[in-house]
This record gives sequence, structure tokens and C-alpha cells, in this order.
Amino acid sequence: MRWRTIGVIGGMGPAATADFMARLVAGANAARDADHPRVLIDSNPHVPDRNAAIAGTGPSPGPVLAGMAANLLAQGAEVLAMPCNAAHGWANDVRAVAGKRFVDIIDTAIAAAMQHNTRRIGVIAIGATLDGRLYDRASVPVIAADRVLVQPLVNSIKGGDTGPAVATAMAAIAAGLVADGADVIIAACTEVPLVLGASAVAVPLIDATAALASATLAAARLG
Amino acid sequence: MRWRTIGVIGGMGPAATADFMARLVAGANAARDADHPRVLIDSNPHVPDRNAAIAGTGPSPGPVLAGMAANLLAQGAEVLAMPCNAAHGWANDVRAVAGKRFVDIIDTAIAAAMQHNTRRIGVIAIGATLDGRLYDRASVPVIAADRVLVQPLVNSIKGGDTGPAVATAMAAIAAGLVADGADVIIAACTEVPLVLGASAVAVPLIDATAALASATLAAARLG
Repeated sequence: MRWRTIGVIGGMGPAATADFMARLVAGANAARDADHPRVLIDSNPHVPDRNAAIAGTGPSPGPVLAGMAANLLAQGAEVLAMPCNAAHGWANDVRAVAGKRFVDIIDTAIAAAMQHNTRRIGVIAIGATLDGRLYDRASVPVIAADRVLVQPLVNSIKGGDTGPAVATAMAAIAAGLVADGADVIIAACTEVPLVLGASAVAVPLIDATAALASATLAAARLG
Repeated sequence: MRWRTIGVIGGMGPAATADFMARLVAGANAARDADHPRVLIDSNPHVPDRNAAIAGTGPSPGPVLAGMAANLLAQGAEVLAMPCNAAHGWANDVRAVAGKRFVDIIDTAIAAAMQHNTRRIGVIAIGATLDGRLYDRASVPVIAADRVLVQPLVNSIKGGDTGPAVATAMAAIAAGLVADGADVIIAACTEVPLVLGASAVAVPLIDATAALASATLAAARLG
């Protein structure tokens, strides 16, 4: 197999970037080292806070993300991915540098969700993703879980807690969206799938990280 | 927490690099994104084959590894790690570029093994690690598992098979070293700990990848 080099604008958070890398490795379906794509990762936990930026209380992450993208391209990356939903509020800053070489997590997650004869999408996301209205580009109605419930769980996961209490609370959030009529759920924050699996949700669950990994590999594959 | 930037000379194999990244994330003990170190990873599966090089049938990986190291340093990495035991046969090529900024997996694994009142170390490694006599620098006798048993299991893991048959076979290899008098086992190939846990071995098991992650974080920590 031959591949384009993949660049990862990461660190938001670092565990989600590690999860994304593991999915790239598994998804390559390679029999030996040489059949994998080269992957360049910048796991940068110092990107300005997305929630603070969209609330107007902190600097925009856009210039830092564009700088990371430019640097990865200069290192030889030919396809770029950014495993963080909220950061896609500044996706246009990345696209200004990378153009069509950038694979958008929101587009890929919505496309995956629409493969289920979907009438209403439920998203589990944090404030910056919701305030940026990132999932409103879907062609069907989108309902969102209460950010007041989601954010503390995401904070716990970022702090390393992926235990049963966090997992149970996340499953309850998904169940609430199903009760409100969602027939597909998108785990629209890259920390969410670290505790929420398909078996814990009564309707199809779209793991945005997994969808991005698949789309990134598809864009990188040369034959 | 403040950290130096970590650079990872990776891709040997890609799954072991993903495992190493996950261990850096977990080991940072960070409560939020900003408390993690920045990590730059070059997961390059096109490094010349280590077994072929030491057998004299392929090119040396040394120049490629040194080039990756120089590039990571130029990107801002201040501490370098290479999660592949066999590649340390060319560690001096990396040290020529990085000096003391390079954290050596062999040194760290031996140091971890010697914390158990150890009289004889058993290593599970592939041919290039054994032929390079990398673990012979230990201050106690070292015995090695039969490479003819180890290599096919490593190949299976590199091909994505981490199932029970591979795990059981790896545990049997460890048991054989214990029967031969090893009182500590070093998982001295970064694919080995992907299927072998401490609970499957009757004596202390040193995961060289985990030891390298700890030592790398210690070298990167600024306070």
C-alpha cells in the first residue's frame, strides 16, 4: 500500500489525539510496518482555550492552529486532520493554509450520521461546538445535549478519569437525546468516545473521531 | 506543570508508537490539556528494516533515524525518545545529533529491571536486538528467548493480531525464561507489551515502553 503523509493538528486533548492515532493504525489494515502511512503529529496542549475564545474571554486559537497546519505541511504532510470538534470553529483558519488537504471532522461525522435514514441527529458536544453552531450544517434537525451536563464529564476525561461513573453519566446523556427523538447520536467531542461505546446507546452512535480517522485514511490512500 | 517539548522517533511499529503516546498522556498526570507536555511525533514506517540491516542484507537505518531526530529538534523538541528496542542498535547515530537529549530505552529498561534484587534478566526480543547485544550492558547475566519463537508473534502483532492465541504464546515464552532462571523479564520489543501484561508472568515484568515513557516524562519535567 502507498499513502500520502498524514499530519495531525492535535493536543485538544492529548488523550483524544492518542485515540485518533490508534485508530489510524488500526484502520490502515496493514500487515507490516512499511504498509502504514507516515503520520506526523503535533500534540500541542497550549492551543488557546476554545470555550474561552468563543465566549470572548480569551484569544482565538485560529492563528496557532493555522501555524501548526503550515508547519506540518512544511514537514511533508499532504493530508491534515484535527481531532477536536470545538477547534473546527476555526477550521477556516486551517483551510486558508491547507485548502482541500484538510479533512473536516464535522463534515465527516454528519456524512456518517446520514447513512442511517436519519430524521433527527442528537449531538453530545461542549459549549464551543454548540455556540459555533458547527453541526447546524446538517440537512436534518439537530438537537444537543445540555452542555452543563457534558462539560464536567469532558473535564473529568481530560483529567484522566474514564471510569464507570463517567461512562454511566455519558450513557444517560445519550439516552436523554434518544428520549427527545434523536435517531442517531454523534459523539461530537473527541473525549466522549473514550467512555461511550455503541453498545451503551439504543440508536446508532457516530464516533466523530472514528469517522475522521476513516475519512483521513481514505484521503491519504494512493493505492 | 511545565515541560520541555518531547520528540518521538516513531513508526517502528506504528502500534507501538501509539502505545507510547498513550503512556505519555497517562503518565503526565495532568488535570487539564494545558498541563500536558507538547509532543511531536514522526511515525515513519519507512525506516530501513532493522533485522535486514544487522544481517547485512539491507541498508542501515542510522542515517534516517538521525535525520528524524534532527528534524524533531529543529521543530522544537528538547527531549527525544525512540520507542523501538531494535532501532537502538543505531542509537549512537541519534546521539550524534541529540546528545544527552536522547533518552535510551535499553538503559531505562535495565535500570527498571535492576530494582528487583535481580540476579538474572530474561529478555523477549527480536533478532536485531539480540544480534546487536543491546541488553548485554546489564550488570547481571541476561538470557534471551528463542528468536524463532518471538519473531512470528511480533509479526502477527505488527499485522494487527493481538488476540488470545498470540497472547498465550507470548506468556509461554515468558514462562520458559522463568523456568531457565530469569527472576525479572524485560519485554524488550515494543510490540510485546501489546499482548503481555504483568499478570501473565510469574516474576516482575518490565515493559520497556512504559519504562521509556516514565524516563522521558522525568527528563521533560521542568517543575
